[in-house]
Parts: sequence; structure tokens; C-alpha cells
Amino acid sequence: MTTTDGLTGVASQVTVLGLGDMGSAIAKVFVNRGYRTTVWNRTASKGAPLVEAGATAAATAAEAVAASPLVVVCLLDNTAVEQVLGSVDAAVAGRVLVNVTSGSPAQARSNERWASERGAEYLDGKIMGDPPYVGTPNIVFPFSGARRAFEAHESTLRVLGSVEYHGEDPGAAAVEFMAQVAVAYELLIGFLHALRLVQAEGVDVAEFAERVAGSLGAYPPLLTSFGQAVKNGEYGPDLGSLDVQAALMDDMISHRESMGVEAVRMREVKDLMDRRIADGHGDQGFSSLFEVITKRR
Amino acid sequence: MTTTDGLTGVASQVTVLGLGDMGSAIAKVFVNRGYRTTVWNRTASKGAPLVEAGATAAATAAEAVAASPLVVVCLLDNTAVEQVLGSVDAAVAGRVLVNVTSGSPAQARSNERWASERGAEYLDGKIMGDPPYVGTPNIVFPFSGARRAFEAHESTLRVLGSVEYHGEDPGAAAVEFMAQVAVAYELLIGFLHALRLVQAEGVDVAEFAERVAGSLGAYPPLLTSFGQAVKNGEYGPDLGSLDVQAALMDDMISHRESMGVEAVRMREVKDLMDRRIADGHGDQGFSSLFEVITKRR
Ligand SMILES: NC(=O)c1ccc[n+]([C@@H]2O[C@H](COP(=O)([O-])OP(=O)(O)OC[C@H]3O[C@@H](n4cnc5c(N)ncnc54)[C@H](OP(=O)(O)O)[C@@H]3O)[C@@H](O)[C@H]2O)c1
Ligand SMILES: NC(=O)c1ccc[n+]([C@@H]2O[C@H](COP(=O)([O-])OP(=O)(O)OC[C@H]3O[C@@H](n4cnc5c(N)ncnc54)[C@H](OP(=O)(O)O)[C@@H]3O)[C@@H](O)[C@H]2O)c1
Repeated sequence: MTTTDGLTGVASQVTVLGLGDMGSAIAKVFVNRGYRTTVWNRTASKGAPLVEAGATAAATAAEAVAASPLVVVCLLDNTAVEQVLGSVDAAVAGRVLVNVTSGSPAQARSNERWASERGAEYLDGKIMGDPPYVGTPNIVFPFSGARRAFEAHESTLRVLGSVEYHGEDPGAAAVEFMAQVAVAYELLIGFLHALRLVQAEGVDVAEFAERVAGSLGAYPPLLTSFGQAVKNGEYGPDLGSLDVQAALMDDMISHRESMGVEAVRMREVKDLMDRRIADGHGDQGFSSLFEVITKRR
Repeated sequence: MTTTDGLTGVASQVTVLGLGDMGSAIAKVFVNRGYRTTVWNRTASKGAPLVEAGATAAATAAEAVAASPLVVVCLLDNTAVEQVLGSVDAAVAGRVLVNVTSGSPAQARSNERWASERGAEYLDGKIMGDPPYVGTPNIVFPFSGARRAFEAHESTLRVLGSVEYHGEDPGAAAVEFMAQVAVAYELLIGFLHALRLVQAEGVDVAEFAERVAGSLGAYPPLLTSFGQAVKNGEYGPDLGSLDVQAALMDDMISHRESMGVEAVRMREVKDLMDRRIADGHGDQGFSSLFEVITKRR
């Protein structure tokens, strides 16, 4: 099967720079969906399985960029992006550069300036999901940057997974990514500490994990209501009043300490609760801690 | 409707000590389900709506305890429990004491000793859910302590919500509660910091909250697999290898700092990743950080 451009009937062409786990998964999906795919990787040997599957390997990144109107960049980090793009330089003119390498909003904005100075359009993308899910709806790609470029290539990008467009600010996809990853990491590191706690008390960690997994169903409506509360600045007594919640924090902190489990974050929560109560809002709930977080700046 | 004891045909009797938001919800459900309910509260006026609904108010906690074989205690914290039980003292003999006040495992174990010295059986319970859910399956009560007492009163306890029995150690329900609440608080405080971050970047917080809520569906299988990994000490590259994950942490930390959002927890995660990588396990995933958490003690 060959995917063709709807207007010209010519086979659609795409280039992928970077063939680590993620870049290879991306290139593989393009090949499988019939795109004429050009690939390049610093360590050339990683291109072999893709060439076998039908891709064309380019000798340099600049050659790879020259081969297709759409160039997807998937490298380790922004330092790698800057090095590889530095070697491409003026050859990027006229291309649409789609950078899905993890990085910060500031880096995305700086990459956009680099591209536009060289006559290329820039789309920043981020990847929320693992390589095996590329090509399925179970991986999410937030994009932001040049709207025209996004719309022109949306159908190609949708080949990779679920796609969101977050607006013209090239940093917006990275904002979404950084915030989502942070929520995931906070949950998961807290969860690992909890596993440590229950294990120290002789509880089966796998069974505990299943109970926590089962209780996650309660969170989507809670998070949605927190979002509304913060947006409107109107805080109900979610999870009970802070007066009641604060009463158990010292017990929780001393329990963790007695079991040798870190309690830094619980102490932060207690401190925020105490300050919100001191401000006269002990009747409000957990979401109202947002006001104290904001004030601290 | 009157609920009767299956063996004797006598109306089932229950006492509730403490009529705050939660204690009142508990007493109300007992009254509604036909239990002969005796109530007591330090501030007597809070009993009025319950008396109106059919409960009997006792003048002292000791009188209330004398009225029923089963006594549910729901006060602010363990300090309140100790004060109220101190006033009851020997009158507790022959009763089953079910304490659902929040507190630590150590406090539960100490309460059990207090009760058994006075010839009472002790069950510790904790409450995972809010007062409006009492009497529905959407609130979970972990219990632990005297198995005989639990089995004798299980049908009554099930009136309150979903019930779990965590074994004879009276501290076990509190272990579960402390660990589950900590996971919830870590997720929620991390989420509030993320709202702060996206708000500072001009993103609609309510829309972001809905996207995070939508992404929570991916977590139950992830948490379950983390539990298995920790139990077996076998860590796959979950969420990608640590080598790749660590590469984005500095960007994440500097982004948060540039926006005035605290980064303490992200720095902890980065530090744990660096140490796990230094131990030669950069090919493993996030769950393997458990090993570093454990080692640090
Ligand atoms: N689960 C995941 O893996 C996952 C999930 C979401 C997002 N991501 C993101 O996707 C991106 C790629 O991840 P990955 O899993 O593919 O990582 P990876 O397997 O470690 O591959 C890294 C890639 O970057 C290249 N590279 C590194 N430094 C370079 C440099 N200085 N110059 C040129 N090329 C360089 C490597 O080339 P060599 O082969 O020559 O070393 C390789 O192609 C990362 O930003 C990551 O955060 C990954
Ligand atoms: N969403 C929730 O509310 C929720 C959720 C899960 C668990 N819980 C737990 O349920 C328990 C009760 O919470 P709640 O919401 O009912 O709290 P609450 O509305 O603040 O009520 C506190 C109760 O404790 C009594 N009390 C406090 N100090 C006392 C003392 N020294 N001596 C005698 N009585 C004392 C109060 O009596 P007065 O009326 O005389 O002040 C009142 O009956 C807490 O342990 C809480 O952590 C609550």
C-alpha cells in the first residue's frame, strides 16, 4: 500500500531523524502505512530494520531533510536536536519541521525561531505514551505552533496516534507535556513511597497496588471539580474541611517517619493546610490549597 | 422499619459517639435502616436532628455506651477518642468498640490494648470517602482487629458502605488508610502545582483538568504492574528507560522554576533516577526507583 497526496496523487513522503526506540516506532508506522519514508540516525546501524521494512536511509541528516517536505525529529533531548539541526542548517528551508523530542516550552520557542529564520515552518509535538502504542489511539501527541502546517499535515500526524492542537504558541505542547508528566510522576513517586510504607508493615504490595488501582475511578470527577474550583476561585469542602483534614496530617507524618518513609511532601501539604486555615478558610477543602500555592511566589 | 437481630428477634441496637459531619451521617444511616440508635456528642445540640429522626440521645458518653452492644466512635482525632473513652472507662466492658476516627496504626494498637484491658473487643476502622456517600457502596471502610467481633457485626457494618477486613492486627486498617490517603494527597497536591504551572502559561485550568481526568484511565494497569514489579523485584522499562526519562528532568525542573512553581518533588525524582542509573540500571523503568527508596533508609 502506498499513501498518496490527495491533491497530486504523488506518494506522500516523510523523513524521520532519530531512530531510538521512539523514532524507530514512528518510522515503522509510516512505512507500514505506505509513506515513502526516509530515515537517518547518528548511529547508522539502527536504520537497518527500517530499510529492510522499506524505508530509505540517508547518509546525513541534511540529505534526509532534503528528501521530504515533512520532517519528524525524535531525538533524546534538545541538546541532540540542536546538534542535529545545526548540521542541517540551511537545508531546512521550505520544510515543515515537526519536533517530537521531549523538552521545555522555552526550547520549543527557540527551535521555532531557528526554523523560521531559515525559511522553515515549525511544529512542536510531545509524546504521551510508550513506543508500542505508536500508531494506535492509546498514545497522545499534543502539537502546537504553525496552524497552517498543522492543518496541512494533520492527516499524516494522525497516523501516529491521538492528536491535539494546542494553538500557535510553539511552547504550548511542551507546557501540556511538562504538566501532565509532572502529575504522573507525583502520583507514581508517591505511590512507590506508599508501597514502601505498606511493605514495611507486612502488607502484600501487589494486593495493595490493585486496591489503589481500583480506587482511581473516584478521581476523574474529583480532578474535574478541582479544575472548576480553581478556575472560579470557589472552594467547597472537597475531601472534607481543611480543619478535619489537618487533624490527621501529624499522625500521617509521624507514622511515615516511624517506618523510615520520607514525609517531605506530606509536611508540605500540612504546612499549606495550616496556612489556609490561618487565613480563615478552614471550612474549605483540599482544592483551596491552590490559593496558598499561588500566594507563595 | 426496625432491624432485628436474626437470632433473638430483638431490635438491633447501636451507639454512635461523635456527631460531626461524619458521625451524624453514620448515625443517620443506622436510624434510617431501622437500628435502635443511641447517640452522644460533646456539644449536645448536634444530636437534635438525629433525635428528630428517631435516635435516642444519651446524657453522657458512658450512658450511650451502656445502651448498645455495638459502639461506633467517630470523633475528630485520636486525642478526642482518648478523652471520650477516658470518661467511659469501665462502662466499656462487654462492648464491641468500633473506632472509625482517623489515626495512625500505633494509635489503633494502643486503643485495642485499652479496650481489652477493660474487657471490651476492639475493631479499628477507617473511612475512605465523604459523608454524603455513607450508606452507599461508594465509600470504603477498611477494618482490622478482633476477627470474631468483625464477623459478628459484619452485616451491621455493611450498612455503612463497602467493607474490607484487613486482619487481626488492629493497626492494619490505619496502614491501609494512611497509605491510600498519602497516594491521594501526592496526586492532588502535584495536580494543584500543575494547575498553577499551566495557569501561569495562560492555559484554561478547567480544560487542563479535564484532560488529566481523561488520562487517568491509563493508570490502573500501570499501578498494578508497578505492584507486581516491586513484589517480584523485576523491573521492566515502564514509562521508558530511566536513561531517557532522566534526560527530560532538568528541563522539567528549570521550566517549573522559571514559572515560580515548586520543584522539590521533581528534584527528588531526578535524584532517585540518577542514583538508579549510577547503580547500572538505566535500562529499567520508573518502578525500579523503589529499590533506591528502600536503600536510602
Ligand atoms: N517510552 C519512551 O521511550 C518515550 C515516551 C515518551 C516520549 N519519549 C521521548 O522520545 C524521545 C526519544 O526517546 P527514545 O526512547 O527513542 O530514546 P533512545 O532510544 O535513547 O534514542 C535516543 C535517540 O537520540 C539520538 N541521539 C542522542 N544524542 C544525540 C546527539 N548528540 N546527536 C544525534 N543523535 C543523538 C540517539 O542516536 P544514537 O542511536 O546514535 O545514540 C537515538 O536516535 C525522547 O525525547 C523521549 O523523552 C520517549
Ligand atoms: N469528609 C470527611 O468529613 C471525612 C472523610 C473521611 C474520614 N473522616 C474522619 O471522620 C472523623 C470525623 O470527621 P468529621 O467530618 O465528622 O469532623 P467534624 O465535623 O469536625 O466533627 C468532629 C467531631 O469530633 C468531636 N470532638 C472533637 N474534639 C473532641 C473532644 N476533645 N472531645 C469530644 N469530642 C470531640 C466534635 O464534637 P463537638 O461537636 O462537640 O465539637 C465532633 O463530634 C475524623 O477522624 C475524620 O478524619 C472524615
